[in-house]
Amino acid sequence: MQRKIYLKKLDVSDALEKYKAELQQRGFFFDESEIIQTRKSARRVLAEAVYAKRNVPAYNSAAMDGIAVRSVDTAGASKVRPKILQKNQFEFINTGNPMKIPFDSVIMIENVHVIDEDHVQIFESIPPFHNVRLIGEDVCEQDMIFTRYHRLRPYDVALLLAAGVFEVKVLKKMKAIVIPTGGEVVQPEDEIDVGAIPETNSVMIKAYLEELDVDVNVNDVVPDSLDLISETILKAVESYDLIFLNAGSSAGSFDYSYHALEQLGKVVVHGLNVRPGKPTILGIIRNKPVICLPGYPGSCYVILENIVKPLINEKYRIITEKNLFLEASSLRRVVSSISEDEFIRVSLAKIKDRYVFVPLKRGAASMDALSKMSGTVVVQKGVELLDEGDKVTVGLNRSLEEIDKNILFVGSHDPLISIIADLLKQKDFSLNMSIVNAGSMGAVAAVAKNCAHIGGIHLFDPVSGEYNVPYLKRYLPQYILMKFVKRNQGLIVQKGNPKKIENLFDLTRKDIRFVNRQRAAGTRILLDYHLSKLGIDPSQINGYEDEEFTHINLALKIKKGMADVGLGIAFAAKIMDLDFIPLIWEDYDLLVLEEFFNDDRFQIIMDLILSKNFCNSDLIYQGYDLSSVGKIIRGENCDQISGNNNQ
Amino acid sequence: MQRKIYLKKLDVSDALEKYKAELQQRGFFFDESEIIQTRKSARRVLAEAVYAKRNVPAYNSAAMDGIAVRSVDTAGASKVRPKILQKNQFEFINTGNPMKIPFDSVIMIENVHVIDEDHVQIFESIPPFHNVRLIGEDVCEQDMIFTRYHRLRPYDVALLLAAGVFEVKVLKKMKAIVIPTGGEVVQPEDEIDVGAIPETNSVMIKAYLEELDVDVNVNDVVPDSLDLISETILKAVESYDLIFLNAGSSAGSFDYSYHALEQLGKVVVHGLNVRPGKPTILGIIRNKPVICLPGYPGSCYVILENIVKPLINEKYRIITEKNLFLEASSLRRVVSSISEDEFIRVSLAKIKDRYVFVPLKRGAASMDALSKMSGTVVVQKGVELLDEGDKVTVGLNRSLEEIDKNILFVGSHDPLISIIADLLKQKDFSLNMSIVNAGSMGAVAAVAKNCAHIGGIHLFDPVSGEYNVPYLKRYLPQYILMKFVKRNQGLIVQKGNPKKIENLFDLTRKDIRFVNRQRAAGTRILLDYHLSKLGIDPSQINGYEDEEFTHINLALKIKKGMADVGLGIAFAAKIMDLDFIPLIWEDYDLLVLEEFFNDDRFQIIMDLILSKNFCNSDLIYQGYDLSSVGKIIRGENCDQISGNNNQ
Repeated sequence: MQRKIYLKKLDVSDALEKYKAELQQRGFFFDESEIIQTRKSARRVLAEAVYAKRNVPAYNSAAMDGIAVRSVDTAGASKVRPKILQKNQFEFINTGNPMKIPFDSVIMIENVHVIDEDHVQIFESIPPFHNVRLIGEDVCEQDMIFTRYHRLRPYDVALLLAAGVFEVKVLKKMKAIVIPTGGEVVQPEDEIDVGAIPETNSVMIKAYLEELDVDVNVNDVVPDSLDLISETILKAVESYDLIFLNAGSSAGSFDYSYHALEQLGKVVVHGLNVRPGKPTILGIIRNKPVICLPGYPGSCYVILENIVKPLINEKYRIITEKNLFLEASSLRRVVSSISEDEFIRVSLAKIKDRYVFVPLKRGAASMDALSKMSGTVVVQKGVELLDEGDKVTVGLNRSLEEIDKNILFVGSHDPLISIIADLLKQKDFSLNMSIVNAGSMGAVAAVAKNCAHIGGIHLFDPVSGEYNVPYLKRYLPQYILMKFVKRNQGLIVQKGNPKKIENLFDLTRKDIRFVNRQRAAGTRILLDYHLSKLGIDPSQINGYEDEEFTHINLALKIKKGMADVGLGIAFAAKIMDLDFIPLIWEDYDLLVLEEFFNDDRFQIIMDLILSKNFCNSDLIYQGYDLSSVGKIIRGENCDQISGNNNQ
Repeated sequence: MQRKIYLKKLDVSDALEKYKAELQQRGFFFDESEIIQTRKSARRVLAEAVYAKRNVPAYNSAAMDGIAVRSVDTAGASKVRPKILQKNQFEFINTGNPMKIPFDSVIMIENVHVIDEDHVQIFESIPPFHNVRLIGEDVCEQDMIFTRYHRLRPYDVALLLAAGVFEVKVLKKMKAIVIPTGGEVVQPEDEIDVGAIPETNSVMIKAYLEELDVDVNVNDVVPDSLDLISETILKAVESYDLIFLNAGSSAGSFDYSYHALEQLGKVVVHGLNVRPGKPTILGIIRNKPVICLPGYPGSCYVILENIVKPLINEKYRIITEKNLFLEASSLRRVVSSISEDEFIRVSLAKIKDRYVFVPLKRGAASMDALSKMSGTVVVQKGVELLDEGDKVTVGLNRSLEEIDKNILFVGSHDPLISIIADLLKQKDFSLNMSIVNAGSMGAVAAVAKNCAHIGGIHLFDPVSGEYNVPYLKRYLPQYILMKFVKRNQGLIVQKGNPKKIENLFDLTRKDIRFVNRQRAAGTRILLDYHLSKLGIDPSQINGYEDEEFTHINLALKIKKGMADVGLGIAFAAKIMDLDFIPLIWEDYDLLVLEEFFNDDRFQIIMDLILSKNFCNSDLIYQGYDLSSVGKIIRGENCDQISGNNNQ
């Protein structure tokens, strides 16, 4: 099968307009309605104007507690010249009680002097319907209550029922089908053999569409066959209003979908000028929209948000709300393509009364970045660079309340940080901690630039033999360091140590493949120091240039036989069930932004780190030493260091 | 039964805090969880941290189209000194395809010179895992993917499945019961006899709670009996997490609820310092929250928003988002109680780059005001007056997109305006027209103060005998008037005219009860003019002081026998099936704010008013004359009038 190159790629907004125009021509946006019970109409959109069928309220009632009277009987009464009403001329009445004939007005009880059960004295002359809640006062029979296309909220439904409208004509609920395609695609619950792709997109698409009030079915996976795909599409257009193909992530199934659409109907848009999201096809078959969503989840989400949602809202006559946005500065430099719009997922936090963001993994395939994002930055085509510190507009994917309380942790990777984030939630569910792995030097830089609340560092200084403080003295005019844990660094090797690795000298053996940590990682600095001390030339190490960003990813590479050995923490070896050759105890400490040190949120973190619950936790097994936890070291003007124990 | 006076009334926020503290003590906020299928977990909140059970991706794959190679085989290759790889040293590979042993790296196809099927030339030396999407790159087995209390979104569910997590422990979905009480309460589908109250609140409460992810059952209405109410509550606390009583709107059932709560458990809060919403009871029975919601829908809604929602979100560990807000100026003066917070429902629009709002009906009973509101102003206790023009903070109940496009019509009432609002929706569903009935003089004032886009006026000038223009010359430095309809004003009387009313002189008859329009209404001005011309003394008219705000409400009063006659338009008599004695043809025209005249939205209104569809519509039957529709009259500096026909 021939691979299709993209038709002229369109920008997202142009593509949407073009597609909408073609669908409009084919009658897709004509109203389709159904009549449903008003009781079940919450969230539905009216297909026609609704008129009241009875009055609200349905009869006259007292608006006050008091006496019901005939207004004519009150004529002439005043404070100076009170009037006495007798039995049959009045009746005691409570708020909400119906007015009985011949009474037409109410005098407040406070303004009545009760003589006895049959006689009252009044001090005012009142007009008809005084203090009376009138029939039809709220809504009159025949009033237009709602125009067409009004989306019914809970109180609207109550009003309709009060006004005697028991059935309403609403826009029909759309039915969609999601058709996963691709020979390599398997159910996520299955074992994922090499080459297989778990089919998770349909779950995401279904949940996403359901939030937009579309009913969704998911088809079985259709293998890479033009005939089978075509057949499935033809069947789908008979029963569904919206058809979504999802093309695995291989080029093959995407091509089959393209050919099927081309043969069965019209391809309106093929390929978008956007990253991620490029491999998108917008087609029409028998007047139904058939959309081929990209296989990578990051791409798929961009198209759901920017093409599918506006389309569905248009059909439902709902105005698409823009995301909230704010101005924020980037922690990192981002180079983007000049020819495409790029949607960059970011994690946002408020630091020192300004917002900062960290760009997350940019790969379209990353599901982790989607789940971690609290905002989106669009780097327009024509713009190549988003520089560190640049202030740009960020659209919010979480509420401002969440973002304002988010704590940004930047630093060296340690699994204990995730555990702290979880315990923080337990303590106060409104507190969230975003964890960015950027290495120890990344942490120092982020805190120095007010771009992180907390940094996690383990920086060995070869001159003094000390950890962390010498670096802070060098790079920061002042700092607050909270001692956290000592942790065991060593060589992580295969279970049983089959290659009999004993120390760093073994790394240069020809039969050994090493895996390294990235530059600026504390562990890398440690390695380089010890190599140099032992006179080992890094170029002799097979795999020295193979870098991983976390201890766990490094251990995984060893676990999977992609490497034999790496330098890392005991904890990583333990959870991956690998062997560990201890080399050094190092200090992993928390660098705290000055402002954040006095923040209530930091006090909560301190409290939970110092709690018995944490220090004696099962989680703190071999590999960690918490004897110095909580000690605060303050440094100022690069010279003075005053230690005090805050425990 | 003794009526209970309120315990010390609390402010809403204090009441919520007190109630939460009492519930906390009784364990209400302890986590309750259940294990569900991940596939069905969208919108649910995790009860514990979740760790990946497998790697994402599950194996190494090509990140580029190209050739798979062993990195060691590329050593030494460069642009200057290319290297040739032979069969078995390379394999063509597409993006996403798994890496096969022994290959560990990919060279992009663009950087490869293909000699023949078995030979390629390469120009670079690459490290291991170059252009390879690594196993665990996105998420590593054992990584903490989410902390507890994370609310799962569509892409989170996909990530969990990809990471091999097929079941999740989530916070249990709460079950609530709504128990309507009150002897006078009937199903809304029933005939509403005098004294009966349609039970619409439970529908509103149910729909509201369902939006917050609570399962809701509605109990049958419980009559006013302490025993029956107590029995129902006791049964409810056994099976439900949240119990809501709804007390009709009479004082009686509210009192029964109070006594029941007091006897069965604890009343924590009785009465709130807020309007509407005062008659609220927050109780606890057998550690379950039992809340008595006020009977008036306006009150009920304030308590749902400000007490119930934060409580449910707290239990679900969801941060309650604040409404968006903006600064806006009031069209009208509002006098509020100094001792209570008052929640005023308002209709918002953007006029001349600032926001204005119109306070809606303030009665707690008004369902219409709830349905029309686009924002809420809170007048704090201690503040007595919100003056016309005062700029205050308005919380939004609709999206900013909707508010920005809202068209504010202020003026004399005519049912055609509602029809225009509906046709406007048909033309462009993003356009909404808010209609405020404020009489013709109210319209002139609103447009003069830039507080309305369009005013609807019919103002007769006794001196010139002309309509509208003389008033505009008097009150506005410049204006744009669009001629709309001539309409027939006359006497609306009972069907068959049983009292044989013929003209205005009959209004002074002793056997006749008149209903009037409010001061400043064009119809009132017209009446007063003709009365004075005929030498009729208004004080001789029985009911002259009985005022209604719309033609339809006036006609309804006649329909229901509360009056015999009123001055109004033929249309109102027609739809109420009453008789009509024509008196005068009057001009009902549209006063257009200068800026709005050049707005696209006004062009749409013009187009639809001038369309054959509208002019020939069945809706325009007797009573309206559209011969001058669309003619534009511009006036400037109170002197010049230039007429031009825009048709």
